[in-house]
Amino acid sequence: MNDIQVEVPQETTEYAIKIQKGLLQNVGEELSAITSSRRVAVVTDKNVHQHYGETVDTQLKRAGFTVHFIILEPGEQTKTFSSMPAMYSELINAGITRSDVIVALGGGVVGDIAGFVAATFLRGIDFVQIPTSLLAQVDSSVGGKVGVDLPEGKNLAGAFYHPKLVIIDPDVLNTLSDHYFSDGMAEVIKYGCIKDASFFDKLTQLNSREKVMAEIENVIETCCKIKQDMVQQDEKDKGIRMLLNFGHTLGHAIEAYYNYESITHGHAVAIGMVTLTAIAEEKGLTEKGTAEKVRRCLSGHNLPAELDEPEAYDFILSYIKKDKKQLNNQLHVVIIETIGQAATYKTGIGFFDQLTTGGQIT
Amino acid sequence: MNDIQVEVPQETTEYAIKIQKGLLQNVGEELSAITSSRRVAVVTDKNVHQHYGETVDTQLKRAGFTVHFIILEPGEQTKTFSSMPAMYSELINAGITRSDVIVALGGGVVGDIAGFVAATFLRGIDFVQIPTSLLAQVDSSVGGKVGVDLPEGKNLAGAFYHPKLVIIDPDVLNTLSDHYFSDGMAEVIKYGCIKDASFFDKLTQLNSREKVMAEIENVIETCCKIKQDMVQQDEKDKGIRMLLNFGHTLGHAIEAYYNYESITHGHAVAIGMVTLTAIAEEKGLTEKGTAEKVRRCLSGHNLPAELDEPEAYDFILSYIKKDKKQLNNQLHVVIIETIGQAATYKTGIGFFDQLTTGGQIT
Repeated sequence: MNDIQVEVPQETTEYAIKIQKGLLQNVGEELSAITSSRRVAVVTDKNVHQHYGETVDTQLKRAGFTVHFIILEPGEQTKTFSSMPAMYSELINAGITRSDVIVALGGGVVGDIAGFVAATFLRGIDFVQIPTSLLAQVDSSVGGKVGVDLPEGKNLAGAFYHPKLVIIDPDVLNTLSDHYFSDGMAEVIKYGCIKDASFFDKLTQLNSREKVMAEIENVIETCCKIKQDMVQQDEKDKGIRMLLNFGHTLGHAIEAYYNYESITHGHAVAIGMVTLTAIAEEKGLTEKGTAEKVRRCLSGHNLPAELDEPEAYDFILSYIKKDKKQLNNQLHVVIIETIGQAATYKTGIGFFDQLTTGGQIT
Repeated sequence: MNDIQVEVPQETTEYAIKIQKGLLQNVGEELSAITSSRRVAVVTDKNVHQHYGETVDTQLKRAGFTVHFIILEPGEQTKTFSSMPAMYSELINAGITRSDVIVALGGGVVGDIAGFVAATFLRGIDFVQIPTSLLAQVDSSVGGKVGVDLPEGKNLAGAFYHPKLVIIDPDVLNTLSDHYFSDGMAEVIKYGCIKDASFFDKLTQLNSREKVMAEIENVIETCCKIKQDMVQQDEKDKGIRMLLNFGHTLGHAIEAYYNYESITHGHAVAIGMVTLTAIAEEKGLTEKGTAEKVRRCLSGHNLPAELDEPEAYDFILSYIKKDKKQLNNQLHVVIIETIGQAATYKTGIGFFDQLTTGGQIT
């Protein structure tokens, strides 16, 4: 046997997350600092383009960039594999080469698909995240997960591909509806639940959008640091990074039940966090009173703690069981033992069964 | 400004290239050694499946694997972005999860698309290359370049994604036609040209398929080692790895002229290597007599040195010019100064102009 041992060293991925009110006004300078190219494709959606397209266009041109906008339809239905060929075509027609840059200007949908296009176009070109929703600023723009949906399910095609820079301007949150501001707050509160009790307490006190916005830079920074710390330890999501999924097993199933239409991600995760924690309390896995603390904190940010239609759990649990069938009926749920202290709990798919008795867990 | 500096350490990519006659008979054991999963999807094409499908199926099942075959139509037209959704569907229906394995059993087309599907399905799952053409054994299965064609051009979407193992069984070359055996020899000879004069001399002496096959394990090993060495130094193809493109600028343009139909990759590269070297000799960049040496070596392996239709260079050069327009008319060609010594030469797109005078370069 002629054996060759191959070792391809991989460089450490390094980039900055910059958080500052008004930072969008400096996007030209910020981009200039990380690339020598002067050609950029900005991927965005119609709504975001209406609010911030002109600012970004002006600032980038002022810094000497040739700018090409790729403007997508808003909404999750855009984030599909079948949307990608048209985006590649636009990049080719705009003359984007391996040394140029893709900027993702928008929420999670835009960041996910633009990132995946950047990861795969010409085997990968630089990209920069400018998240414009609170959810994207504290969650999806950090950590390198990019991807699209397939007809068979969400996020089934994708990559781990990190941006060269994340530009977070909390001022852009001012054009966010109250509903979507709350939606992002669910993920913010999640970070407190799994990792930082004093941050959680602070969020319980900051019980209005105005109070949060008064401290928004620090709020976002705290979330990004927690996420970044877990990603650094476990980029490929096989260990500690999974703690970020607190509330998400139920949350995803709830979203699927409502076809990703009448309930949004953060609201579903909020219900998932409280419901799971109530069950875990009953099983003695979680300190008594924790679910109530989570519920109170969420409530201060206009987030739900229970499903409007508890009878839907019949379907929701069958969805989880189907989803996990391949794993030999094993289920790894992320619980919190107390506020700020998360753990993975290996159980069976019967873990949630009491939800189908019809009674609410309180 | 609240700045967070992210550093995500990346593990060194390690894998073995195993080269041995008859190795296909051990595919079950070899796969068992690199995965704890017992579920595998084998991507192949109809031709290769006819020859080796049963062997691979039997050996994998004997080792306890559940095996699902994804059988593609043979040929470059299969290697498109639009072929991928059906492949993802098959993987999902076969119950392939993040911990399972995709095996690419076939030539470059199969390896490229199966590798890209593996790189992107569920954000990347393990894959193993079993190249069955000489071209794939010495070139495309090593180095981590995977990808597909877009309507706008070849290999425009893809990734750098390394296999967990490359299994090379030279016995499978016995079912290769003489044409495709020669096609692979063009890349073999290229390695001699750019890096190893004594290997080149040996290839000149081994002037028949039978003589090559008598030493095939060492021939393949030499090629893979040269490639691996360059890939280790420059995975992302921005420096020394580009030397592997010797003969390819012209070669690719020739392939494009013939619509990837009436001329195959190795034959086009053969013409590219000789023609480029003849021009470089005239310009004093290459030692006199080198083109003739390359031509003689290629001829011993039934490979052409000249285009049948030199009048086609009008189109072929316009193709190169169009292709390189974005780079401000700069062209980096890979030349050999002498056999075994390659270099990158920065020039203008006029470098090849003398080809359009109508006369052959001799």
